[in-house]
Amino acid sequence: MEKRYLLAPGPTPVSPRALLNMAEPIIHHRGPEFSNILSEIREGLKYLFQTKNEVLIFSSTGTGAMEGAVTNMLSKGDKALVVNGGKFGERWGDICKAYGVETVLIDVTWGEAADPNIIKKTLDSDSSIKAVLTQACETSTGVGHPIKEIADIVKDKENTILIVDAISAMGAIDLPVDKWKLDVVVAGSQKAMMLPPGIAFASVSDKAWRFAEDSNLPKYYFNFKKELNSINKNQTAYTSAVSLLIGLAESLKQIKSEGLENIYKRHERLAKATRAAIKGLGLQLYAPKSPSNAITAILAPNGINGSDVVKVMREKYKVTIAGGQSQAKGKIFRIAHMGYIDQFDIITAISALEMTLNELGYHVELGKGAKTALEVLNG
Amino acid sequence: MEKRYLLAPGPTPVSPRALLNMAEPIIHHRGPEFSNILSEIREGLKYLFQTKNEVLIFSSTGTGAMEGAVTNMLSKGDKALVVNGGKFGERWGDICKAYGVETVLIDVTWGEAADPNIIKKTLDSDSSIKAVLTQACETSTGVGHPIKEIADIVKDKENTILIVDAISAMGAIDLPVDKWKLDVVVAGSQKAMMLPPGIAFASVSDKAWRFAEDSNLPKYYFNFKKELNSINKNQTAYTSAVSLLIGLAESLKQIKSEGLENIYKRHERLAKATRAAIKGLGLQLYAPKSPSNAITAILAPNGINGSDVVKVMREKYKVTIAGGQSQAKGKIFRIAHMGYIDQFDIITAISALEMTLNELGYHVELGKGAKTALEVLNG
Repeated sequence: MEKRYLLAPGPTPVSPRALLNMAEPIIHHRGPEFSNILSEIREGLKYLFQTKNEVLIFSSTGTGAMEGAVTNMLSKGDKALVVNGGKFGERWGDICKAYGVETVLIDVTWGEAADPNIIKKTLDSDSSIKAVLTQACETSTGVGHPIKEIADIVKDKENTILIVDAISAMGAIDLPVDKWKLDVVVAGSQKAMMLPPGIAFASVSDKAWRFAEDSNLPKYYFNFKKELNSINKNQTAYTSAVSLLIGLAESLKQIKSEGLENIYKRHERLAKATRAAIKGLGLQLYAPKSPSNAITAILAPNGINGSDVVKVMREKYKVTIAGGQSQAKGKIFRIAHMGYIDQFDIITAISALEMTLNELGYHVELGKGAKTALEVLNG
Repeated sequence: MEKRYLLAPGPTPVSPRALLNMAEPIIHHRGPEFSNILSEIREGLKYLFQTKNEVLIFSSTGTGAMEGAVTNMLSKGDKALVVNGGKFGERWGDICKAYGVETVLIDVTWGEAADPNIIKKTLDSDSSIKAVLTQACETSTGVGHPIKEIADIVKDKENTILIVDAISAMGAIDLPVDKWKLDVVVAGSQKAMMLPPGIAFASVSDKAWRFAEDSNLPKYYFNFKKELNSINKNQTAYTSAVSLLIGLAESLKQIKSEGLENIYKRHERLAKATRAAIKGLGLQLYAPKSPSNAITAILAPNGINGSDVVKVMREKYKVTIAGGQSQAKGKIFRIAHMGYIDQFDIITAISALEMTLNELGYHVELGKGAKTALEVLNG
């Protein structure tokens, strides 16, 4: 029998109801019925992002909206501070480079979080830095960067905005966009928003819209002002990804119904159980000091390749988790607990991991990790 | 009862099997199972595009791949000839403008096709023109531009490539990419490819890849070389739109099974029946001389607003067609017959149109258009 479990950091499982809604016959994206759906979606996105501003919608994956954040906010030759502590921090740097934005890289050891003091010092010493680019959750390392602390530094700087890649954080971790004054927050459909990949989002603060006025970088498909004009009319500038947006309407309903506070507590509880189970098995966390509640990165035990853990779990136990990327390849494996994931998914993943480790020659007592997780979950 | 019919030029209906396949639980985009699906998709796309080269896949709507065609082939200050005969011709011009590409606009009256002689004369008199940008089917006017004739002119020019927006043509009209030497051909999922909106495509000729080597326009998300490297490994550079690609695998299977020749004949037959019915009702085609087989644009009769035709058809008869855009707004309405559409969809649309016209005060003999269509379909 082929029964599969998905605990990868995107795509993540989609609820059966959203899947079925997306399987309904296609409707036209310029008609009144779809306009009503987009109107609901706008409200749902404002709730999720905790913002009064419009959240822009793009037919693309998250990277497209990241590119848009750079090209719509900055100008050629502008300087941006990049928190460079993983594959997605690197991506911010690559996007800047592609568009002629100068970067000041704050190199952070993989597995560690950015130090707000260094960011403050750098910004204080160079007033020409126009933007701080960071991840809320650096998916490649499982680290949660201190977004509130960084935001507190940036919010007082009139000439600097904070751009946050929250692709794997939005819906998993509390990120009150307006309260914390996060200027641009990018998200994607296929993580804690519980949808297939293919739509991306960006919230834009009033301060950021002023930056958009001055931006001279070239852009066409990812044009924030054009999308703002369209979303105000319950449309997207180009053809809407109709089926995915119909799924989004459903997932936003589920998010509203569970409630943000409960959602963040659930992610925290699942993350704590996962971390406890891992430690209970004698393994080490890759990001012990500042783990994100969206994903747990684990150091492969001595002599075992992290990629083999992933492979055996997938092939023998039908449980899909993720390996390490770039410099962490082979060294770590990652269990995501974001989105449509509950406590028994964690027990499943830990149970499969226990069997896998034994198979790979790293002896663990079967049931020990699961027991530790259950104790946290039941606590 | 609410039974609806969709004959708009994108999104178009999706087959029940593709809808159901897309409703299967999400799988991971970096695993071997998805890799196998992408391998099938690559073959299916080569068959559909009639090319030996790889067809690149983007998570975006068609406009994104149009932008990519410009930013990956051209450089700042390059000159491009744009066939400017509708809303999508205008879009080529707008994209060029956004990226600092100089345009030579060949203005074509809406409803008419580009004159290859003018294109030849223009290219002959200005050897610095690096690209010709055109639509295969200008969706806004229902015109089919003479792609083979244009390609015959461009193919002999070593320093010029032909970039074709085939978003509403691919899968409806014969466009043998390699045989005709079409350098870049852009397509989208939500037209004759019978899928929801959200994925776009671009084929790239060897000649075009040489242009890509020299291109210095900024790009990141729509990076053709990066996507080529990825697709050669059965991946996409960024997260794949998993559910849409699973639908694509199914629709490409259906395309292969029907066969390209039969598909083009079907579209021709449906288009001829639609045009005959329209003329039988005493109405006029908007593009009488070079109508595309993908869509029929119809002049609203005197005294009747084309948008009202669309509205009554949708609200009273649940049949969705499209109105006119920009300068054609109110003047025309458009019946699309691309993709998952058969003869009875045409009879439905014509029947609904007959009732609608009578309701709007333009008297037509009920059944006359349907009869004319049937005669063509049965012929």
